Amino acid sequence: MTALPELLDANQAFYEAHEQRDLDAMIAVWSTGDDVVCVHPGWRILRGEREVLSSWAAIFGGGGRNQFIITNVEAFVRGDVGVVTCDENLVDGSAGATIAATIAATNVFERRDGAWRMVAHHGSPVVPRM
Amino acid sequence: MTALPELLDANQAFYEAHEQRDLDAMIAVWSTGDDVVCVHPGWRILRGEREVLSSWAAIFGGGGRNQFIITNVEAFVRGDVGVVTCDENLVDGSAGATIAATIAATNVFERRDGAWRMVAHHGSPVVPRM
Repeated sequence: MTALPELLDANQAFYEAHEQRDLDAMIAVWSTGDDVVCVHPGWRILRGEREVLSSWAAIFGGGGRNQFIITNVEAFVRGDVGVVTCDENLVDGSAGATIAATIAATNVFERRDGAWRMVAHHGSPVVPRM
Repeated sequence: MTALPELLDANQAFYEAHEQRDLDAMIAVWSTGDDVVCVHPGWRILRGEREVLSSWAAIFGGGGRNQFIITNVEAFVRGDVGVVTCDENLVDGSAGATIAATIAATNVFERRDGAWRMVAHHGSPVVPRM
């Protein structure tokens, strides 16, 4: 269980790269190769480092700005794989820092050369229910 | 890579349990304990075998019937963890077996006593894009 703090640091680095719109930092977060996979909210499955990182470049190059409050974080480790789930609460700065939407995220990391690198990210909007 | 066929069989068993609305089969698909995690399309994160399996009981007990055509399946194994991603194409039988919606799914399995058991499922609707 000693791997958990480093795993959570890697998860945090992912959200910092996203908030900062820092493609180099995002590249450092992700593992490499054809296995990596990413599902942005509402998107089709993207596979392979080229397609995944291209999507981040497009997101960072687009308008707007994503700021998150990350809550409800839980994680577990099995060997050299770690799974983190959390809520990405999107802050709407124009409305006095209210929560505009919540995205449920599943983030899978692998440990390579001692460092946790993301191999899968899946985010989906949480629809308010009755 | 010899683990891949069994991993894909486990993934298939998950969808068969869902289509058959067979809670016992779904229980057999899932791993046990507090770590397991499930995000149904539009839902909040559900954690722990009790909450996850209760959601399946509720889904199976509800109206309607889900029939899938599973496509775009890719998988990789890291030690005793396997990750499968695929498209769940929901068939609308009332409209002559057309595809009513596509759900992108990330399914994470762990190998316990030689058998692949699901530890995480995340599904999200693919929104048709321009």
